[in-house]
Amino acid sequence: MSLFTPPAPGRQPDPHLAHRRATASVTVHGPDGAPLADQVVTVRQRSHDFGFGCIGFDLIDHANGVSADPDADAALAEHWLALFNRATLPFYWGRFEPEQGLPHTQELLGAARWFQEHGAEVKGHPLVWHTVSAPWLLQYEPAEIERLQRERIRRDVADFAGVIDTWDAINEVVIMPLHTKVENGITRIARELGRIEMVRLAFEEARSVNPQATLLLNDFDMSSAYECLIEGVLEAGIRIDRLGLQSHMHQGAWGRERTEEILERFSRYNIPIHFTETTILSGDLMPAHIDDLNDWQVEHWPSTPDGEERQADEIEEHYRTLFSHPAVESMTYWGLSDRGMWLGAPGGLLRADGSPKPAYDRLRRLITEEWWLAPTTLRTDTAGQVQFEGFLGTYEILTAAGSVDLHLERPGMYGVSLHPGDG
Amino acid sequence: MSLFTPPAPGRQPDPHLAHRRATASVTVHGPDGAPLADQVVTVRQRSHDFGFGCIGFDLIDHANGVSADPDADAALAEHWLALFNRATLPFYWGRFEPEQGLPHTQELLGAARWFQEHGAEVKGHPLVWHTVSAPWLLQYEPAEIERLQRERIRRDVADFAGVIDTWDAINEVVIMPLHTKVENGITRIARELGRIEMVRLAFEEARSVNPQATLLLNDFDMSSAYECLIEGVLEAGIRIDRLGLQSHMHQGAWGRERTEEILERFSRYNIPIHFTETTILSGDLMPAHIDDLNDWQVEHWPSTPDGEERQADEIEEHYRTLFSHPAVESMTYWGLSDRGMWLGAPGGLLRADGSPKPAYDRLRRLITEEWWLAPTTLRTDTAGQVQFEGFLGTYEILTAAGSVDLHLERPGMYGVSLHPGDG
Repeated sequence: MSLFTPPAPGRQPDPHLAHRRATASVTVHGPDGAPLADQVVTVRQRSHDFGFGCIGFDLIDHANGVSADPDADAALAEHWLALFNRATLPFYWGRFEPEQGLPHTQELLGAARWFQEHGAEVKGHPLVWHTVSAPWLLQYEPAEIERLQRERIRRDVADFAGVIDTWDAINEVVIMPLHTKVENGITRIARELGRIEMVRLAFEEARSVNPQATLLLNDFDMSSAYECLIEGVLEAGIRIDRLGLQSHMHQGAWGRERTEEILERFSRYNIPIHFTETTILSGDLMPAHIDDLNDWQVEHWPSTPDGEERQADEIEEHYRTLFSHPAVESMTYWGLSDRGMWLGAPGGLLRADGSPKPAYDRLRRLITEEWWLAPTTLRTDTAGQVQFEGFLGTYEILTAAGSVDLHLERPGMYGVSLHPGDG
Repeated sequence: MSLFTPPAPGRQPDPHLAHRRATASVTVHGPDGAPLADQVVTVRQRSHDFGFGCIGFDLIDHANGVSADPDADAALAEHWLALFNRATLPFYWGRFEPEQGLPHTQELLGAARWFQEHGAEVKGHPLVWHTVSAPWLLQYEPAEIERLQRERIRRDVADFAGVIDTWDAINEVVIMPLHTKVENGITRIARELGRIEMVRLAFEEARSVNPQATLLLNDFDMSSAYECLIEGVLEAGIRIDRLGLQSHMHQGAWGRERTEEILERFSRYNIPIHFTETTILSGDLMPAHIDDLNDWQVEHWPSTPDGEERQADEIEEHYRTLFSHPAVESMTYWGLSDRGMWLGAPGGLLRADGSPKPAYDRLRRLITEEWWLAPTTLRTDTAGQVQFEGFLGTYEILTAAGSVDLHLERPGMYGVSLHPGDG
């Protein structure tokens, strides 16, 4: 049965962020149940609903207590947790299970639990991909590769259920059957099964062991190829929970106009969008003629003062553009620190020595100040009420009569009553 | 039910053209039934199975006996018929039915019958397209536009059945929901229905009134977007009879390597390929930065002597490349003469004055000499047999005892017996 629903007109960005805010009306009651005027009410925001994510690859050792550089990693963790509430952890098959039958499950479980305990939801990336695939797959016939791929999905999704309930089910399907750079078992079966059956395989196996999981289709191809794939997948009756759009900008930031054009096209499918992989450089750009980013190998790729100013502006514009668009539900930055960054690129928000670049401070100002309700003290009116407007997320409301937690889940008006003995 | 079959490995080109040839063994018998030795047998090729096509737009008036320039058109017709056996006729909705309810059916029927009587199969182009769409559609709501589009398909496919049994069912679907240059009713419904339902609509309506029709999906987008679309369409259970690939090369000929790369990818779907629209220039190329070819408007775009030599080489290479590939079933050139060519481009095989460019002579040599069995006289051996190898197509075999027609339909060995009184 087709799951393609007539796409709404592309949803429009709203710089006033009405889609990100709600209003709460709190009524404080006395012991006799009557509303109490002139009472002090303090409101504290506890969390964002919006997903401000980052990869957590370089905190796996720290999370497992086996850091080779404990001080640096502790500082990195602090910077990480000060900004982010979503972590992406690596499940590249070739690294997760370099020897068949010996997956690094405990190590990743340790890391995932650490993030979870520190208030960050974790996503696993990815369950199916042709790159960094397990080399030992190549010894098998396609039917056996397919069986092993299906088994791997069920095993890992089951092993991590409750700790990781969000997965990039499959990555870069548009190019999957055409990827000939490194011979691998996944391209081999993608050529036989076709793109849509590869997507079906990933989603159906993952869902079979964790029906509550949030499953993403993820791609870097922002052309109409990805649109055509999505439409085919939906017509084939495969449910996509979230649409993942990568945005590695090693060759130059997209800017608001291009980003909004992409959002216009991909918001038409009535599926919430995750910006899953953003990189914006604070150094030289990669030349435009490089087709596969992996082809750009440089000895030394420094972060520069000019580059850092540009990066801060571009990152701020990118985050504002995404936050303004009602279809976007989260955005994940692809690496906090330049230390160990993909391709050695200066794309981190911290320098290799751990010091924050301007982009880090800019983001902290956005996420924890401009888009955050500072602790606010109010006084109830004669009807015993206070009102406040806040970003979608969780709040703690304190009065002399007690406290209550409040979740502003969607735009609109929320009414809360506080009675003596609450909280 | 999915019609996606595991794609075969891309079929490989064969410069020896084994896929285009067959061998016939003819045995001549005497009145007593015994084989006759030493008999003269003459073999004449009558036609090609391979489709060597061209648009027939500029012969519509001639075919209907209303030419404004009868001598020039008669010469054009002669040049056309000397090369081609497949004609594409225009059914752009906005021109075919400029006033709602008054389609140019009789005019197109006249033209189609003329081509048919002159041995050329006719294809109608296209039944659904966003460009040159009927402007009067814009007054209607989407549901009514869809109804009119469905009705238009059924009407025209039924009116032309038996004369036109091959249709570009739908054109340029990859870009269809994104085409905003000219406001039109088709983009409007494509955005609501999605690409795959647009394809289903075109194929199912056409097939409903002419179940024998050969229906093409046609596109200029040679990227993986078209692959993703095809896979989605097949998964959705929509049967594509032939895959149409455009190849307007106003910005430079593709060359063998690119053409073969495209053939490798699109031959994976087990669907015969038609190269539906080829243009190769004999003058200045269009600059590479032009994205939509329609944006290039020049006053005067001459054919040049150097350009004509280059065009001849490039056309020969293109035709050799396609003819060498077993997946290709036909190729259609997009305009015989520079007179009235799309965009005013010097892409014809004849100059505006009607004289042949080198490319015309080069193609004639290929199609009617190198890829054609010249009339051949043989003598039967002691077993009363002759053998000949020919390109797939129809043949007339003449002996003193009579004659017989023979169709070499596929590579292999054909046996024929000639008895007295035959023919």
